[in-house]
Amino acid sequence: MLQISKRGLAMPPSPIRKLVPYAEAAKKKGIKVFHLNIGQPDIETPSIMFDAVKNAHMKVLEYSHSAGNESYRRKLAEYYAKVGVKVNHNQIIVTTGGSEAIQFGFMACLDAGDEVIIPEPFYANYNGFAVAAGVTVKPITSSIDNGFALPPIEAFEKAITSRTRAIVICNPNNPTGYLYSKEELEVLKTIIQKHNLFLFSDEAYREFCYTGTHFSAMQLEGVDEHVILMDTVSKRYSACGARIGALVTRNQAVLDTAMKFAQARLSPPGFGQIASEAAIDLPDTYFDGPKAEYLKRRDALVSRLNAMEGVFCPNPGGAFYAIARLPIDDADRFCQWLLESFSYNNQTVMLAPATGFYSTPGLGKNEVRLAYVLNTDDIHAAMDCLEEALRQYPGRTK
Amino acid sequence: MLQISKRGLAMPPSPIRKLVPYAEAAKKKGIKVFHLNIGQPDIETPSIMFDAVKNAHMKVLEYSHSAGNESYRRKLAEYYAKVGVKVNHNQIIVTTGGSEAIQFGFMACLDAGDEVIIPEPFYANYNGFAVAAGVTVKPITSSIDNGFALPPIEAFEKAITSRTRAIVICNPNNPTGYLYSKEELEVLKTIIQKHNLFLFSDEAYREFCYTGTHFSAMQLEGVDEHVILMDTVSKRYSACGARIGALVTRNQAVLDTAMKFAQARLSPPGFGQIASEAAIDLPDTYFDGPKAEYLKRRDALVSRLNAMEGVFCPNPGGAFYAIARLPIDDADRFCQWLLESFSYNNQTVMLAPATGFYSTPGLGKNEVRLAYVLNTDDIHAAMDCLEEALRQYPGRTK
Repeated sequence: MLQISKRGLAMPPSPIRKLVPYAEAAKKKGIKVFHLNIGQPDIETPSIMFDAVKNAHMKVLEYSHSAGNESYRRKLAEYYAKVGVKVNHNQIIVTTGGSEAIQFGFMACLDAGDEVIIPEPFYANYNGFAVAAGVTVKPITSSIDNGFALPPIEAFEKAITSRTRAIVICNPNNPTGYLYSKEELEVLKTIIQKHNLFLFSDEAYREFCYTGTHFSAMQLEGVDEHVILMDTVSKRYSACGARIGALVTRNQAVLDTAMKFAQARLSPPGFGQIASEAAIDLPDTYFDGPKAEYLKRRDALVSRLNAMEGVFCPNPGGAFYAIARLPIDDADRFCQWLLESFSYNNQTVMLAPATGFYSTPGLGKNEVRLAYVLNTDDIHAAMDCLEEALRQYPGRTK
Repeated sequence: MLQISKRGLAMPPSPIRKLVPYAEAAKKKGIKVFHLNIGQPDIETPSIMFDAVKNAHMKVLEYSHSAGNESYRRKLAEYYAKVGVKVNHNQIIVTTGGSEAIQFGFMACLDAGDEVIIPEPFYANYNGFAVAAGVTVKPITSSIDNGFALPPIEAFEKAITSRTRAIVICNPNNPTGYLYSKEELEVLKTIIQKHNLFLFSDEAYREFCYTGTHFSAMQLEGVDEHVILMDTVSKRYSACGARIGALVTRNQAVLDTAMKFAQARLSPPGFGQIASEAAIDLPDTYFDGPKAEYLKRRDALVSRLNAMEGVFCPNPGGAFYAIARLPIDDADRFCQWLLESFSYNNQTVMLAPATGFYSTPGLGKNEVRLAYVLNTDDIHAAMDCLEEALRQYPGRTK
């Protein structure tokens, strides 16, 4: 009998997708399911992106440069300058989604057996990319009680070993929505300088900050060699299907090395690059609309949650996620029950159990992640369901 | 000082791209360069693919299913049935180019330290994917003298160790153009059964066979668990920039495991899937045109090469590559000299030194790969250059 690889066995299944069969079964029964479980925005993709693809006159759909079209990289450098990140087009490698930027960063900087420190709860797919690279994730736990702020410096110091090579942050954060302050970034700077570590900064949600402004890890001074930005157009322009991201760094050795991985896979997607290049011509005011919409939804969601008995949801400063603590015994069981055994006015809600975002076993059992990617009417209807569900759920704890 | 990873250091740079600066310098001097060095076809991409993208009315460019759109996978299953490969849509994972199919296959089936056997010369990027996966490539050498036929079974037996987990073939072959016969595939079947190995079959050039018909590894009987097909639309439809490929297998455990890697990177490109799905509606006669064109070019190229003194080029049965043996001291030096120090009627030719396709050091030093991706007029002009160059080259050996 042929065996699959040990790394294949170690590869975690998607914690979000495992509930999908229950959602499908609920829909088959005629129940409407409000999807607050995934980060697929419903905001319309700017038409300028579709138009650019429609108006591109190509005879041959060729490979692009392995680092991405130069015209796009030059435009991206302009975009980054606008958000306070000074880089030139040669410091940008266009990737197939933010996912590939993470993979290139891990592959170029980390070896099998190396350790990376990530504040938990964190984006679950970091686990997958770590397994693919043979890298061990060392979580340090952030707490819902202070809104998932950066853990204290002592927690980092305690987690650092001789194999530690990097810290990974997501800012603003998926799944918590926490927006790291400039001061917290300065703390990270101290740590990466002292211990000679890379800092991987996933800033997929940069445009969506509600309280305070975004301070990029690329704006830290004196750590050009350390900082690697992972970026994507997926959330920025509601264009997840374009599969266009970027790895950005001023570390030339990392760029040269990532380029070897980029050359092996030939090039990023052609149509997606055309669409993404066009998006940079959107007026600066473009984000006002989506941001105001997300803010309205956040306020609706968070106030509804905190009005429920026994529920606590810190107010997220960015992205379009929130984590709430619920009076329940087991988030996985509760989320499955919502789909399998519950409905209210023939509706129910799909949530992501927070357990999938914690690396430490046992954590997040009374927490769920909610993505506010539905309009406020739907959010209210979903909250009506949740409120009623918490009344009926047999595993309610208080 | 921060260090990049050991695997990053071990990652081979693209052997084809290292000559690019010399080609750019030649062009700056006003010399026309005929590019026979890369597999970027000049055949027009079918307009049905562009039209499908233009006519797709989407409001949100969403993630697709991680395995690819179901409608596309169902169409792909129909396509495979037509080429003699019986699979259903659940046995297909749509990937970001053939490159990602190779990566998923390696990651799902192989662990760090495992060995794969690949007949050399082989597609250079297999090295890169092997390094990324921590896998060791064990080459067995095929010979230009018999047109790069499958090495004898004894060569495989000799190369197999306790760590051998798979054999990789490319059929028809890049870089040799060799088309494996059904009998050769049956030999491989014997070996993979006897030694319990996976067989990765890269069939990117399936449609372009000139002598004999294509026999897919997926048509071997009784080895459903062993065979993994890596495929792509890049060459088939001259659509390299779509970045759409597929991993196809009847091994459920491999599918399940590859899906975990697919879920981690979320989804393959959206526009590319739309274009690729439309391509399946092309009439069966579509390939007659491109195939006849490639055949004409092959005949022109191979007859011109073999008419040159001291040159030998076996007639390739498929793909759009040929390897020729030249009377030269060093292919890398010669190819650089062509760009740096030679021109004929203000023209020169860019070739790929075959050394980059051999894993065994020292092999391929008097061989070059030629991709016949130019029209016959240009091929003749390029051959005029090469003929003259071989007369003038100071390192000519006979």
